[in-house]
Amino acid sequence: MTYKELQALDLKHIWHPCSQMKDYESFPPIVIDRGEGVWLYDKRGNRYLDAVSSWWVNLFGHTNQRISQALAEQAQKLEHVIFANFTHEPAIHVADKLVALTPKGLEKVFFADNGSAAIEVALKMSFQYRAQTNQPKKKRFLAFSNAYHGETLGALSVGGVDLYNEVYAPLLLNVVHTEGPDCFRCPFGESPSTCNAPCTQYVEEQLKQHADTISAAIIEPLIQAAAGMKMYPPVFLKKLRKLCIEYDVHLIADEVAVGFGRTGTLFACEQADITPDFLCLSKGITGGYLPLSAVLTTNEVYNAFYDDYGTMKAFLHSHSYSGNPLALRVAQEVLAIFEEEQVLTKLIPKQQLLKELAHEAFDHLPYVGEYRQTGFVGAVELVANKETKKSYPGEERIGYQIYQRALEKGLLIRPLGNIIYFMPPFVISEDEIKWMIETTKEVLDQYFKERCE
Amino acid sequence: MTYKELQALDLKHIWHPCSQMKDYESFPPIVIDRGEGVWLYDKRGNRYLDAVSSWWVNLFGHTNQRISQALAEQAQKLEHVIFANFTHEPAIHVADKLVALTPKGLEKVFFADNGSAAIEVALKMSFQYRAQTNQPKKKRFLAFSNAYHGETLGALSVGGVDLYNEVYAPLLLNVVHTEGPDCFRCPFGESPSTCNAPCTQYVEEQLKQHADTISAAIIEPLIQAAAGMKMYPPVFLKKLRKLCIEYDVHLIADEVAVGFGRTGTLFACEQADITPDFLCLSKGITGGYLPLSAVLTTNEVYNAFYDDYGTMKAFLHSHSYSGNPLALRVAQEVLAIFEEEQVLTKLIPKQQLLKELAHEAFDHLPYVGEYRQTGFVGAVELVANKETKKSYPGEERIGYQIYQRALEKGLLIRPLGNIIYFMPPFVISEDEIKWMIETTKEVLDQYFKERCE
Ligand SMILES: Cc1ncc(COP(=O)(O)O)c(C=O)c1O
Ligand SMILES: Cc1ncc(COP(=O)(O)O)c(C=O)c1O
Repeated sequence: MTYKELQALDLKHIWHPCSQMKDYESFPPIVIDRGEGVWLYDKRGNRYLDAVSSWWVNLFGHTNQRISQALAEQAQKLEHVIFANFTHEPAIHVADKLVALTPKGLEKVFFADNGSAAIEVALKMSFQYRAQTNQPKKKRFLAFSNAYHGETLGALSVGGVDLYNEVYAPLLLNVVHTEGPDCFRCPFGESPSTCNAPCTQYVEEQLKQHADTISAAIIEPLIQAAAGMKMYPPVFLKKLRKLCIEYDVHLIADEVAVGFGRTGTLFACEQADITPDFLCLSKGITGGYLPLSAVLTTNEVYNAFYDDYGTMKAFLHSHSYSGNPLALRVAQEVLAIFEEEQVLTKLIPKQQLLKELAHEAFDHLPYVGEYRQTGFVGAVELVANKETKKSYPGEERIGYQIYQRALEKGLLIRPLGNIIYFMPPFVISEDEIKWMIETTKEVLDQYFKERCE
Repeated sequence: MTYKELQALDLKHIWHPCSQMKDYESFPPIVIDRGEGVWLYDKRGNRYLDAVSSWWVNLFGHTNQRISQALAEQAQKLEHVIFANFTHEPAIHVADKLVALTPKGLEKVFFADNGSAAIEVALKMSFQYRAQTNQPKKKRFLAFSNAYHGETLGALSVGGVDLYNEVYAPLLLNVVHTEGPDCFRCPFGESPSTCNAPCTQYVEEQLKQHADTISAAIIEPLIQAAAGMKMYPPVFLKKLRKLCIEYDVHLIADEVAVGFGRTGTLFACEQADITPDFLCLSKGITGGYLPLSAVLTTNEVYNAFYDDYGTMKAFLHSHSYSGNPLALRVAQEVLAIFEEEQVLTKLIPKQQLLKELAHEAFDHLPYVGEYRQTGFVGAVELVANKETKKSYPGEERIGYQIYQRALEKGLLIRPLGNIIYFMPPFVISEDEIKWMIETTKEVLDQYFKERCE
């Protein structure tokens, strides 16, 4: 089949995620043939630098040799086994490692298939814990504005991005929504590097009023990713952790996007030196290979479910592929790479380079509100007015136009509204970082030049 | 590590799905090392015939050479790529094939990661369709007693098995629940082979009353699996399809468990000659290798979302690993095996043998209410009284005890309450079928003999 035929056959039958399919009329899907390192190659021979790690999942490059090899070997040994009453070494190994690597006090690991399912598991565990520890009034959850936790109905309920939630409102849980941090447009006029997170007063207020009916609060540590890489300092998390203890509310840390090194530490919670009651992991856990997620929790939670069968206290959640050996063998290899190849140490100069180049390239531009970076996640926020920080209206779809232009140059960035971000695989080279920033700058310059004409 | 050390390390950190972990004190997890065909081998060298296809997912045996090979090759080519605006040949190929193989009229394919997510997608699509076609009152779903559709909150809401739902009631959607078919204890005194499904009167009654507020009805075609392999004839589906059209309610067919040949036809809906508005597939779609699901729907539904971006009608649901090339390459191979190896034709004599042997072995036993079979799914329903069909009380955990005894003999059956079922990989040999039935009979005889003593 020719390239155009493949595109046509795709559009005949495939409904792509997170897409208005009509957009594909003028911008048909790019048919990728192979990947290597940070590069994706289409069937025409064009290549694209995957600056978004294919929705933030890839860590060590496409078709990483260590991981592909481990996967192939596992497929010759044990592809899957029912995970109730059965187990296998990759699962045991990964659970043991995750407990060792995550904040102290998280002792039990529950596996699921994707990020959304991990959130559902944490919500359900917290809820059932309350029912089984004589706190039946604690039935609700507290969530932050601009949060994104996935799109199954439970996960969607604790989201705060209207784009995803609004149409489904009648299907969603009755959640206590509160203001999260908003450092770029801080209502307190503070700077994130020096502030003491006065904005926790909003959540404190809600806890004061509603803690007796709240089972858990859920948050994305350090970066609210889908909302546009909104970053906030560890002090917010530290204070939130304290408040949750004070008001006897579980803290669910959703590190689906930020876990596995993205923020510079293996887990974002480390930077605030906190232990959540539930830690949700996915995406990078398989280095971008396969769907898998894990929820870590405390022995205190676990013990509230541990009893004679007849008490009916078990946590019955399961998925057919829970504990999948292929995905877990891949996760095992990912953790081995972190350990053996000093990934986080080697990332430091790359983070530094990204920061320097990006500030240099973007800070002075009239249409850039700020360039911000946490670990190896960088974001350029475009604004209509640099002084007032006024946004461009969503209808203009500036991000989408920039996206298309960048692709023409072989760069895959996928802006979130007016925020262009960089979240490349850790294996990106210094030259590739340079090229990524230069190309982004070129695209922006050209776009805004034409716009003004 | 010794076998016992592995078991201890597992229990130190792993919280297994669908398990009261306290049960593991007396019955620790079996550490599987490798799989081949229908057999799972533990690290001590014991082997177990996987008569439940590891939660109904495996089709062509553990570590199937064709599939493992295809997976290894794909891992060298393209392990993953973001599926918004990008695509790849395995996805195009699988979507094209699925449309060709499923009932006529299903034209679009939306991929997700697991069965639960497929259900959530179907529910959300149906709901949003109503909002976008001027039927905003149609906000609810209709579900059947004894249904199981997964455990994320949306999927759980349309379930009807109290064991899974009860504790979470305050978190679940307001669903219209109605009586499903109950052929073993038919309230109309009919036999499933001759009846005209008078029991559809229950759903008809609910539709009559509530159709103006119902968006979709959801059902497991032919077998309500998790409820205990409750089987019912195609005529029920046929009548349900008609009723849904009459009352303008979508029909969601959840073929997560029964799809891909389990009922003797590739999809269960074929036997009723119906096309649902949504068809949910998972489990067997990857032959038991990897989590993947697909929701197929009509152009009519698709078109209600297809419009200019600014109308905000897009279906925004996504998962990080939506359209994963590794899982889709595996699915492609599974579909190729079905086509090239005459799987369903070769299954006919095996189905026949299973049926003959099982009837012969179980029918006459005083504690067996019935042996029933649909396609390659067989189930023995144990009863305390053969005349009255009275069940054994759940507290006695008869199924659990039989499960443990069978495992000691190298047979992995995992009864659902008092129902022992057979749902082996299609590659099981005739000798293995014989051994599976004989061993089950031995275990039952022994168990009930001891019980009476
Ligand atoms: C913070 C966060 N939580 C949860 C999810 C949902 O994960 P998944 O897409 O695997 O369902 C995402 C996905 O983007 C995420 O960024
Ligand atoms: C009929 C049916 N629907 C949905 C599901 C949920 O699928 P998953 O376990 O992959 O989430 C199952 C799983 O057993 C099922 O049997």
